[in-house]
Amino acid sequence: MYRRIMWKFFAATTFAAVLSISLIVSLQADEGMWLFNRPPNALLKSRYGFEATHDWLDHVQQSSIRFNNGGSGEFVSADGLVMTNHHVGTDCMQKLSSSGHDYLTTGFMAKTREVEPRCVDLELNVLMQIEDVTDRVNAAVNLQMDTAAAEKARRAIINTIEKESLDKTGLRSDVVALYNGGEYDLYRYKKYTDVRLVFAPEKDIAFLGGDPDNFEYPRYDLDICFFRVYEKNQPARIQHYLKWSPQGAEDGELILVSGHPGRTERLDTVRHLGSLRDQIYPYILNLLRRREILLRTYSERSSENARRAHEDLFSIENSRKAILGMLAGLQDPLIMSKKAGDEQTLRAAVMKDPKLEPAYGGAWEQVASSIRTSEEIYRDYSLLEGAQAFDSNLFEHARTLVRLADETAKPNAERLREYSEAALESLKLELFSTAPIYDDLETAKLADSLSLLAESLGADNELVRNVLAGSSPRKRAADLVEGCTLKDVETRKQLAQAGRKGIDASKDPIIQLAKVIDPEARRLRKIRDEQVREVQRQAYAKIAKARFAVFGTGLYPDATFTLRLAFGVVNGYQEGTEQLPWTTTLGGAYKHSEDHQNQPPFALPKSWFEHRNDINPNTPLNFVNTADIIGGNSGSPVINKNAELVGIIFDGNLESLVLDYIYTEDQARAIAVHSSGILEALRKIYQANALVNELMPGAVAGK
Amino acid sequence: MYRRIMWKFFAATTFAAVLSISLIVSLQADEGMWLFNRPPNALLKSRYGFEATHDWLDHVQQSSIRFNNGGSGEFVSADGLVMTNHHVGTDCMQKLSSSGHDYLTTGFMAKTREVEPRCVDLELNVLMQIEDVTDRVNAAVNLQMDTAAAEKARRAIINTIEKESLDKTGLRSDVVALYNGGEYDLYRYKKYTDVRLVFAPEKDIAFLGGDPDNFEYPRYDLDICFFRVYEKNQPARIQHYLKWSPQGAEDGELILVSGHPGRTERLDTVRHLGSLRDQIYPYILNLLRRREILLRTYSERSSENARRAHEDLFSIENSRKAILGMLAGLQDPLIMSKKAGDEQTLRAAVMKDPKLEPAYGGAWEQVASSIRTSEEIYRDYSLLEGAQAFDSNLFEHARTLVRLADETAKPNAERLREYSEAALESLKLELFSTAPIYDDLETAKLADSLSLLAESLGADNELVRNVLAGSSPRKRAADLVEGCTLKDVETRKQLAQAGRKGIDASKDPIIQLAKVIDPEARRLRKIRDEQVREVQRQAYAKIAKARFAVFGTGLYPDATFTLRLAFGVVNGYQEGTEQLPWTTTLGGAYKHSEDHQNQPPFALPKSWFEHRNDINPNTPLNFVNTADIIGGNSGSPVINKNAELVGIIFDGNLESLVLDYIYTEDQARAIAVHSSGILEALRKIYQANALVNELMPGAVAGK
Repeated sequence: MYRRIMWKFFAATTFAAVLSISLIVSLQADEGMWLFNRPPNALLKSRYGFEATHDWLDHVQQSSIRFNNGGSGEFVSADGLVMTNHHVGTDCMQKLSSSGHDYLTTGFMAKTREVEPRCVDLELNVLMQIEDVTDRVNAAVNLQMDTAAAEKARRAIINTIEKESLDKTGLRSDVVALYNGGEYDLYRYKKYTDVRLVFAPEKDIAFLGGDPDNFEYPRYDLDICFFRVYEKNQPARIQHYLKWSPQGAEDGELILVSGHPGRTERLDTVRHLGSLRDQIYPYILNLLRRREILLRTYSERSSENARRAHEDLFSIENSRKAILGMLAGLQDPLIMSKKAGDEQTLRAAVMKDPKLEPAYGGAWEQVASSIRTSEEIYRDYSLLEGAQAFDSNLFEHARTLVRLADETAKPNAERLREYSEAALESLKLELFSTAPIYDDLETAKLADSLSLLAESLGADNELVRNVLAGSSPRKRAADLVEGCTLKDVETRKQLAQAGRKGIDASKDPIIQLAKVIDPEARRLRKIRDEQVREVQRQAYAKIAKARFAVFGTGLYPDATFTLRLAFGVVNGYQEGTEQLPWTTTLGGAYKHSEDHQNQPPFALPKSWFEHRNDINPNTPLNFVNTADIIGGNSGSPVINKNAELVGIIFDGNLESLVLDYIYTEDQARAIAVHSSGILEALRKIYQANALVNELMPGAVAGK
Repeated sequence: MYRRIMWKFFAATTFAAVLSISLIVSLQADEGMWLFNRPPNALLKSRYGFEATHDWLDHVQQSSIRFNNGGSGEFVSADGLVMTNHHVGTDCMQKLSSSGHDYLTTGFMAKTREVEPRCVDLELNVLMQIEDVTDRVNAAVNLQMDTAAAEKARRAIINTIEKESLDKTGLRSDVVALYNGGEYDLYRYKKYTDVRLVFAPEKDIAFLGGDPDNFEYPRYDLDICFFRVYEKNQPARIQHYLKWSPQGAEDGELILVSGHPGRTERLDTVRHLGSLRDQIYPYILNLLRRREILLRTYSERSSENARRAHEDLFSIENSRKAILGMLAGLQDPLIMSKKAGDEQTLRAAVMKDPKLEPAYGGAWEQVASSIRTSEEIYRDYSLLEGAQAFDSNLFEHARTLVRLADETAKPNAERLREYSEAALESLKLELFSTAPIYDDLETAKLADSLSLLAESLGADNELVRNVLAGSSPRKRAADLVEGCTLKDVETRKQLAQAGRKGIDASKDPIIQLAKVIDPEARRLRKIRDEQVREVQRQAYAKIAKARFAVFGTGLYPDATFTLRLAFGVVNGYQEGTEQLPWTTTLGGAYKHSEDHQNQPPFALPKSWFEHRNDINPNTPLNFVNTADIIGGNSGSPVINKNAELVGIIFDGNLESLVLDYIYTEDQARAIAVHSSGILEALRKIYQANALVNELMPGAVAGK
């Protein structure tokens, strides 16, 4: 499944997240995650004879949605109807479900708008404006400063710009570093936080084939769900939404994809990629496997346990399979030697140019030095600042409360980014979420992660002893969860209100634990921010400029979880001796399930068996195309030249996982659900007439 | 499940396997894994008024069986009938099964003796004689030698003694270091290699509750199966076998357990235990989780995949849960401070004694120094000599063939232990096994472990590059397995026959890989043998002697996978606020399954539902007792004073996992299948009349 591949995990544990310009000497055919304010017009014109007008772009941009929990989506009606992937909506459905009432297993269809249930902490963003603030940022930071001062100055100006914009426009305002700081743009979003569930199929068909089929093709998943955004308790009136194409994508057709790729690292130096390959990914994979086993064993104990852990476990399996694929690519000598060759070409060009050499020649060693620091602190950073040693929702809340008190006491310019004035509203949406917290699951996760801390630093380490306070990890976790008061949202609100005094006075054991950790966690973060990220930002900006100088401009920046336009053709591919078709069908889903004796995770839901004779088995279900996408693009609309919705991205194949650091289109494919298959299922299997009529006014009556 | 907790894994990856005398200042009530030639007569007499006569001991000893693949068992008829745990027999059943024919899922009952299928590589041992060879070993090794010379001399004399004994008696002959080299005994075994499957229930009832219930209680497992040993193609005539008790164990009764505990580490110094806690166990757990995920994802793809990987996956899950429990114990400050206190008492006594101090005072630092070396080489040793980087049956065979050629060219005294003359027959049983090898499973395992090698040493490491030969791990693994000829047993036999010339000429890619690795693997083994194991052997022998001097003799040695006698009482226990009963019942198994909606791993097999009304639901199924057991004891007979079989050990509870390094009986319990429950199931559910009549002549007719 293609979403932002567990973005939080990455954000917390890999701080290699440099935002960087693409290392592309010559673009491959359908390569590129293009900016909406710098679209690939010439390319589209020359290659496909297609002209994306200003209006076309504006319409598509404002029809596209960012799911702030890590995916993409699109408006599909004037009444605020939103489509995304089921696996993007899972987070909301998990939080709305309870023991007797499991939206994921049974699916859901709201009989009327009045009974659409509201998600507890979901925020959707629609990009409205982009403003270039590069000069203002650059004026505040000069490279004579040491990296600590530079990092501080950069943070201050960005916090300030965002706050000013928020005050002025009321829109969510994010400064985005593009081309790794070669350019800074201010993105303004319309924000929706009243988001309600409209329709979801059963997870058994949304994710037919489960982990074995994930990132593979041929595929048979109805990976969709529908939400509706509300304003003032009424369905929002939407000007820009995508019209539904009942025929959907066709073989060989040009398609475009408008979504939010999370991160790519195509500019990373070879030394940097080597660190991902030999250090970071192996470390993350060990953590993921550990969590996966923990949650699998927890889930096996009862069906209620399985329900409670479902979304966590799915996320982890998904990340594990994605990162395994990325690691396999880095371990392929062919790919690494291609990267090394490209780097060598650029460095040689810089070295022999008397102007470029003094300005940019040292950048690669700068990156290498930041990587050495990163490798030194990586494990401890991940444990403490990344909170991998305190895997618990309660700890997350406690940490936020402790820091909220500390940070909001400072002037806005000096705050950690996530506590800046402009960020506070979104932060509080999560902090005050009514999502359920389960004591037994919290205890199991916390016990295991406290044990991880002891294993990593040694049980005799002073910090470990302070954290465990004389208990074993299991007993300590049980005591912490039992004594914690933060499950209650009102308590969290009161503590947030009470500021530092409230935190100082709190007897809550997990608040106290967060305080014990904080000095060391902040120390590690400071090292990372100043000696790793700031150094990389400066060094990669030099490399980007060298690249512009040597190969010319007109390139797209690495992905930054902001809106991008990709394009490609609908196209099957060769795997070994097998030619894989451009599409699969509804009928194929039944066969695929039967080929596995209808056993989980290949068991179709009951509704599909009941209506087997009602559907046209030849209707396309999933299809593949060559668009350049990555995690975060999940739920992105696939549209034709007329901006009609012909499908929705939900995955990439295994061969596409290397797109993180290199584009290839021999076998790499984006996988989408076909618009005609969605329609057929909604009509024939789910009898979702109101929904179908909303997607295509008059459709059901007109049949 | 209690077997030798994946002994091969341990043997390969932890070389902390010191054989050592128990650190027991004062014995707890039912503590002890006693030698048959030094039984706890006084204890049994004073505490339970029971006298174990020479004849009683002799009878029990010769009724007891060692399963060489890692468990225990017992003779239960004069016609060579053997009972053990289902999970000990799984290895044989897995190797006998094929795609259309899965003994594990369907269970098995031989209609007549003629159709009992023969296990492909199972060896059973029955202990016949014990001879003290301490003086002879000590005469060959003197402590003025450096550790390299001492290790060599020790190995030479042991290889020689074993060979002489084998030639003289024809019995399998193993020199065993007891009390960590305080004593060397020669154990002579009668060996059975024609072992045939007689009866096994379905794995769903043998392992009801699966991983969630493993190492837990209350429990409902019919974890038994029956084999028959043959000599000259006829059922072996057995003089000593255990009579079946139809009533079985009773609450509060004294019981005795005669089996083969694999390893304990109760004498380990605190520094040594700290290394297990902070280094070794975390490392092993990461490896186990990695394998578990690999095999789980492989298994989920199809039911045939699941069948192929079943035994591997079960072993790994079992080890993971066991080691997690052991680690949790070591992370409990109460347990570690108890160990530290005991060590402090002994060291203080040594230090203040002018005779003991110079002789033994330095031993603890000697251990510490060996641990430092061990920690330095541990990872690489495990990868290369432990072959964790080449997880494949084909590689195992290739390594054996390469070393067989090298080692058999040397005089017996100089060979690696496993290639000594006395060991060759058992080694060849495995090397020439007809157990199936599956290309796809081999490839998946090898690819993942080659990736592990690259992750661990770095993909740019020279050895890694030599191993991968310019390919990615996945491609290299596929090529290696595809090109390998060793799946064919005849090819292996020819290569073994051809000696070094054959190996040198072989074009087999996995033979060539084994040759590439061997110099570095042997270098690491030499360091371990000389600087870790030999040093520990000498140091722990000193600590043992110090212990004798301070606390007196009359103690039992740490476990060595040799025959031991344990004892205890049948007894429930308190867990939290709950009093757990001494026994569970057949009826309870149905309820337990229903409590989990009869879903796997809690689904009873069809046979149990069909005969639900035929059985007496109050018949005991499992029961707990206080006997001192550990992995390897699986399948051990539980007997009463009259040496009648009242049950069979199959597990310990979670609280018992700390028995590895400290005995406790507050909550630690051995778990056994009750002899009356076995009988009831055989009669009523399986109608195994011939088997029942063999266990209790006349039983079925007499009913």
